[in-house]
Amino acid sequence: MDKDLEDYEKLKKRGKEIYTLASVLTLLEWDQETKMSAQGAPFRASQIELLSSLTHKERTSDSFKNALEKLIDLKTGKIQSEALDERKKGALREFRSEFLKDTKLSNAFVKKLAKASSEGTHAWQKAKGNNTFETFLPYLETIVALNKEKADLLGYDDHPYDALLDLYEPGMTTKKLDILFGELKPFLTDLTKKLSKKKRKDSSFLSTFFPIDKQLAFCRELLSEMGVDPQKSRLDTSAHPFCLGIHPTDVRLTTSTSTTTFFTNLSAVMHEGGHALYELGLPPEDYGTPLGLYCSIAVHESQSKWWECFIGQSRPFCDYLLPKLQKAFPKELKDLSLDHFYSTINQVKPSLIRVFADEVTYILHIIIRYEIEKDFLTGSIKLADLPKIWNAKMEETLGITPETDAEGCLQDVHWSCGLIGYFPTYALGNIYAGQLFETFKKEHPDFETSIAGGDLSFIHHFLLEKIHRHGRESPPVALIENATGTPLSSKPFIDYLKDKYE
Amino acid sequence: MDKDLEDYEKLKKRGKEIYTLASVLTLLEWDQETKMSAQGAPFRASQIELLSSLTHKERTSDSFKNALEKLIDLKTGKIQSEALDERKKGALREFRSEFLKDTKLSNAFVKKLAKASSEGTHAWQKAKGNNTFETFLPYLETIVALNKEKADLLGYDDHPYDALLDLYEPGMTTKKLDILFGELKPFLTDLTKKLSKKKRKDSSFLSTFFPIDKQLAFCRELLSEMGVDPQKSRLDTSAHPFCLGIHPTDVRLTTSTSTTTFFTNLSAVMHEGGHALYELGLPPEDYGTPLGLYCSIAVHESQSKWWECFIGQSRPFCDYLLPKLQKAFPKELKDLSLDHFYSTINQVKPSLIRVFADEVTYILHIIIRYEIEKDFLTGSIKLADLPKIWNAKMEETLGITPETDAEGCLQDVHWSCGLIGYFPTYALGNIYAGQLFETFKKEHPDFETSIAGGDLSFIHHFLLEKIHRHGRESPPVALIENATGTPLSSKPFIDYLKDKYE
Repeated sequence: MDKDLEDYEKLKKRGKEIYTLASVLTLLEWDQETKMSAQGAPFRASQIELLSSLTHKERTSDSFKNALEKLIDLKTGKIQSEALDERKKGALREFRSEFLKDTKLSNAFVKKLAKASSEGTHAWQKAKGNNTFETFLPYLETIVALNKEKADLLGYDDHPYDALLDLYEPGMTTKKLDILFGELKPFLTDLTKKLSKKKRKDSSFLSTFFPIDKQLAFCRELLSEMGVDPQKSRLDTSAHPFCLGIHPTDVRLTTSTSTTTFFTNLSAVMHEGGHALYELGLPPEDYGTPLGLYCSIAVHESQSKWWECFIGQSRPFCDYLLPKLQKAFPKELKDLSLDHFYSTINQVKPSLIRVFADEVTYILHIIIRYEIEKDFLTGSIKLADLPKIWNAKMEETLGITPETDAEGCLQDVHWSCGLIGYFPTYALGNIYAGQLFETFKKEHPDFETSIAGGDLSFIHHFLLEKIHRHGRESPPVALIENATGTPLSSKPFIDYLKDKYE
Repeated sequence: MDKDLEDYEKLKKRGKEIYTLASVLTLLEWDQETKMSAQGAPFRASQIELLSSLTHKERTSDSFKNALEKLIDLKTGKIQSEALDERKKGALREFRSEFLKDTKLSNAFVKKLAKASSEGTHAWQKAKGNNTFETFLPYLETIVALNKEKADLLGYDDHPYDALLDLYEPGMTTKKLDILFGELKPFLTDLTKKLSKKKRKDSSFLSTFFPIDKQLAFCRELLSEMGVDPQKSRLDTSAHPFCLGIHPTDVRLTTSTSTTTFFTNLSAVMHEGGHALYELGLPPEDYGTPLGLYCSIAVHESQSKWWECFIGQSRPFCDYLLPKLQKAFPKELKDLSLDHFYSTINQVKPSLIRVFADEVTYILHIIIRYEIEKDFLTGSIKLADLPKIWNAKMEETLGITPETDAEGCLQDVHWSCGLIGYFPTYALGNIYAGQLFETFKKEHPDFETSIAGGDLSFIHHFLLEKIHRHGRESPPVALIENATGTPLSSKPFIDYLKDKYE
């Protein structure tokens, strides 16, 4: 074998060990949220702490560094080898980029941040429960200060926020986001105003009683029809829905259920099913290198939003789903018409809580958070003023004001657990999905007839080809641009919404 | 703090890391048997291989060795410190003994054995399915040869079998076992002959149809009444029942169910419940040292057999259980009398398969395997003759001969996965339990009335005081002798059987 290929295989072997160790952490997290007994939590925390520390040690170890340096110059990023193909070169660039990020943050700093996050989450839970922002404030101050320090340690050209953003969405910057969100915000604000005036449909069927075991049986069937292989995955219940990929042969989905929220459950299952298909579609032969990993958080979100909204809330899908629902629940749903079903699940109205927002107002919730987070880092707002600022932005953007901070600036867990720079990925997921959807429609002009007729496999195949099988061979924006042949833009997402709602 | 105590705390901190890492392996195994998707198996194998190798590295690391050597001389076992109490000294002796065993087997040898075991298990499954001993023979030859090598590497004074035995039951030797089993064998053979002549009861109620969810609800209730804390444990289903302790706050039990084997399920749940109580009763403050670990495999088995047989199949327990059963399953069990229930679940009859044997003949199955295993190691039997030898011993001991090797020498998984020297722990568990039961009866002369009246908590408390809270502070035989005040002997177990069956 060629020397470079041999070195690449050696690096991959080392990478496999690191990823395998990290995959065990994923299982610990899944078990914690789904199966672990109530009193197992403190010991689970020490298992997770130990494995996290071991994984970080391995990722920053000399042996890994040496294996990497044989193929790529860590300082300049130059790859000498001619023998490696473009995909492998992409893997090396990504390996290097991850290594540089990992080594810029010392073990001590990572621990300090973990401690602040853990204490912050605890304080946030209390503050949210009691609606006392002031008790959370000192924790938020620590977390913001540490995130500033983190941005400085990681380094940036333009805005400290870019350093944090890059952790979740490599290559994304405030400059790019300002353009994307700048186009979206006025359009969404207008659209929301228009749509809010529409007469509300009677949505009482959404809260009909459905037995949980029957809900779950229906969801499992639906996942299987989406292409989620039951031999390689499982669906459980947890407090909040999520999806974790342990390996492309072992993916864990969860949903949260109650007897009167079946349609919320269905929507969550399609969302998590989109994440699951991505994890299941990653090339197993590349496991151990970034080529076997999902591209970015926002690309992951594009896959879940795709199935939840672009497909799951589309008219042809409702046409396909409704008879199935009525067959499974004849008594409960016999009088539901397609028109009523479709229009009820697509009602748009400003609301206070992000996670319950419709697909139009959702993005506005994210933009508000993005604007606030940037100001966190530059210090241009006083953290003590956060509730005031939050409420003003809600009023300005959505025309409503929360009555309590619990329904306002305390609603999300993210800041309390140290995450700043993460929120934009939720909006980017929609933008990416919008752009992919434009291409999908071009390539499959008959998609509506096919879906209504019960064929979903071509959708799965489209995403597999365009996104899944590429792993992390290029940064997210390049992946989307390669997949669609057009530069990144909010326009396709805007067109999708116009087409659907106007 | 005193220097020695400080060093002890440092060692304990290191021990905690090692045990925590090993506990993650336990979770991987539990998940594999209960939740993992069908196609997750190959990747799970690589997770387990990696974690096993990391754990072995930690257990034999210089940093652990250095921490240990500060307190105990690894060569002589001498403890210099005056400041440490007897329990801590016990912990150091056990730490040393484990370290010496771990370091005697090289990483390369451990891997060779793991490979042979994995291949052996695969070959055994096929051979058992097709009833072709000859296809398993070459694998068995490799496994026996490696076990001989293992015994030599570990070292022994008297018999190579002692080296292997010591891995599962520290301090146990063939000399001691020959005495214990020498007393038991003729007694059990005679008793079996006598009891086999009794008229068989109608046992058809045992295979009545019981819905699985109701079986499991009943089992969970029963576990809770035994003292198994549902806040610290969970019961799932798997192909074979087992119990794994991740931590004294997180214990996983399983049972195997079918609609027509409820009583087998109940028995398994009490058995695993006994294991679970032991894991839950270990002192959490000693986690990180052998004082926080179960004493030995056979002591563990004494706890499960205690609940399964000594309590679970006793007349007062049947008296307590039957009304509960009849309340939960009125239709199915309304005509069952206490006499009929008790005598049916205690019928003794020679049978071919160990795992289905009653408490009398069970020990004879073990003694046969022990005799054969010893001969494996000395080479006094040719492995090709195993089926012939097996069948002759079955005929001689139990008066029956298997018609196929699948029901004969191929029935158990143990040899195929490299375990030689493990079987005796099953019999020792009964002997220990018998000796504990003698003490229990003395200390609680009214135990039958209490149990029949529904009080089980004093049983749990007795075992907690005598066994659980001691962890691994002394070797198993010393633990049993301290708990009972009498030297180890088969006599109490013989007396228990005489009292029950004669």
